[in-house]
Amino acid sequence: MSIRISIIGFGAVGQGVADALMRTAYPIEVVAIADSSGAVVDATGVDLAPALQRKRETGAVALADNAFGIDACVTDGGAAADTAGMTALDAIVDVDHEIMVEATPTDISTGGIGLSHIRKAFESGRHVVTSNKGPLVVAYSELCGLARKNDRYFRFEATVGGAMPAINLSNETLAGNRIISIEGVLNGTCNYILTRMDDEGVSYEHALGEAQELGIAEADPSADVDGIDTAAKIVILANSVFGMDVEYDDVDVTGITKITPESFKLAKEEGHTIKLIGEIREGVLKVAPKMVPKNHPLSIGGTFNLASIQTELAGRITIGGIGAGSVETASAILSDILWIEQAIRD
Amino acid sequence: MSIRISIIGFGAVGQGVADALMRTAYPIEVVAIADSSGAVVDATGVDLAPALQRKRETGAVALADNAFGIDACVTDGGAAADTAGMTALDAIVDVDHEIMVEATPTDISTGGIGLSHIRKAFESGRHVVTSNKGPLVVAYSELCGLARKNDRYFRFEATVGGAMPAINLSNETLAGNRIISIEGVLNGTCNYILTRMDDEGVSYEHALGEAQELGIAEADPSADVDGIDTAAKIVILANSVFGMDVEYDDVDVTGITKITPESFKLAKEEGHTIKLIGEIREGVLKVAPKMVPKNHPLSIGGTFNLASIQTELAGRITIGGIGAGSVETASAILSDILWIEQAIRD
Repeated sequence: MSIRISIIGFGAVGQGVADALMRTAYPIEVVAIADSSGAVVDATGVDLAPALQRKRETGAVALADNAFGIDACVTDGGAAADTAGMTALDAIVDVDHEIMVEATPTDISTGGIGLSHIRKAFESGRHVVTSNKGPLVVAYSELCGLARKNDRYFRFEATVGGAMPAINLSNETLAGNRIISIEGVLNGTCNYILTRMDDEGVSYEHALGEAQELGIAEADPSADVDGIDTAAKIVILANSVFGMDVEYDDVDVTGITKITPESFKLAKEEGHTIKLIGEIREGVLKVAPKMVPKNHPLSIGGTFNLASIQTELAGRITIGGIGAGSVETASAILSDILWIEQAIRD
Repeated sequence: MSIRISIIGFGAVGQGVADALMRTAYPIEVVAIADSSGAVVDATGVDLAPALQRKRETGAVALADNAFGIDACVTDGGAAADTAGMTALDAIVDVDHEIMVEATPTDISTGGIGLSHIRKAFESGRHVVTSNKGPLVVAYSELCGLARKNDRYFRFEATVGGAMPAINLSNETLAGNRIISIEGVLNGTCNYILTRMDDEGVSYEHALGEAQELGIAEADPSADVDGIDTAAKIVILANSVFGMDVEYDDVDVTGITKITPESFKLAKEEGHTIKLIGEIREGVLKVAPKMVPKNHPLSIGGTFNLASIQTELAGRITIGGIGAGSVETASAILSDILWIEQAIRD
């Protein structure tokens, strides 16, 4: 029997999950998809191809002839009346399913709407898989408590480093290894900009402009280049891998906007490059540009992410992967779903 | 309640497991340790510090006043009479325990004594964790069948790349990702030699001599430098990650002994280095020296191992770690033990 999931938030990541499910043959059935304009629900499985097409064409996932505005909602067949006007929260509570996939946009100040979604999901007996950093940065221990209280699983590999499985690697694959420290290149946009500055000797502004043209940096790049996104990931790693109880303000954050071509020249003379490194070491959380030897794993170029995990027994373990991307991030969500599927099947 | 294990084979890896257990506080009790000279058994837990000391001082793990020769055996207290003359196989069959840790030396031609140990363990209802490549290269599908038939777990992360968790990462952490290809730097000795040749421009013979002086290469280095060890790991990855059914002879193997300083000079001119790469791609298994761009993750230096795993959804994932070492390899065994401990507790 298939495991039933809802996809709450149908932007790049949510659509990536639908895309990935269409390419694979896993026992996973999507019974609800919700975005800010409404929801589509089908107990026998939402038809994913038309749902993706509707979203791309109309900007809303709800069926066009029913999508008269906010909260418009239909089922793909049967019981339409019961679900008319359904919101994401309604879908979480009222549609029978095992796992809620939360993929709404990140808001690391308040946790955003995703925080309400996750709370409601646990209270409604759903397991939760998310790519949304906001709720984890703002309310990690509260949400873990809610998961425990309701005897549900809470998985969030996709929040740190897209396809790079740093959290589950640390907590599961490396079971038995006390983790001493983690340092990582955790933001693909910054890594792209710094790689270009190193390779071509260009200015920060020039490399940023290039990244924006390629869609690697956003029009307002501050969340990336000011180190905010990296710091959010460091908070999540500190709480989930090191068992700390920290918030965003506990991280000492410096971005990459002040780095000059001259800094790269000096670094190069010593066989080094410069990377934006997030690190957790002896209880201290820090994000800052750092000199890295050219042959060190953290000198990885392009939009790649890499975490270097220092362990007590195994020494240093490195894990790298593509740091962003719709299907890449979806792959981490899929792994978490399948983990839960196996855990509750046994 | 603790999970009870036997350690069969008490060389570098077996001793590493004992070392690691003394440093950690996991619910794991060693109830038997056997080497070729005998065994020590204690249902309430073998005292590890004296066992390690005996092994280091006398070369045998059995208590000195009882170790009159092959198969001498005692318990650390109580029931000594019952276990006198016990062999490794006796310990596997007769001592009540959940997991047999097989850490005898690798023999990839016949599978060695480890093969008998693993067969007997499954038949006796033990789960098996091993660092021994031999049995897996020679009889992978037979052993998996035995494990299934007896409803036991079979874990062998430590066979490939020491502390680098390539197998469990591929099969568990990356669940949901179809693996398309794997290529890896899988032998620390070769990587050390090639790194020195690249860095210093020295000859193969010179770099090998250096590695031998440092204890990184053995007096007879052929298993490493002829690519045999890498090929054995490729066989294990092909069978366990790709679900193939292959043997050593299915791998096309070239070692590193013919590489000249001139080759490195030419590679350098194009921004490349040379690595011994094992790869599995479109059903073809190959081990050979290969040009690798300097900024590619596989250009990793020193004795590090690294696997680059190409997946359908997540793109390229890299995993690196120290490729050998007693405690490092033991850490992979410990992770496998704890995985089983959790699986049978639930």
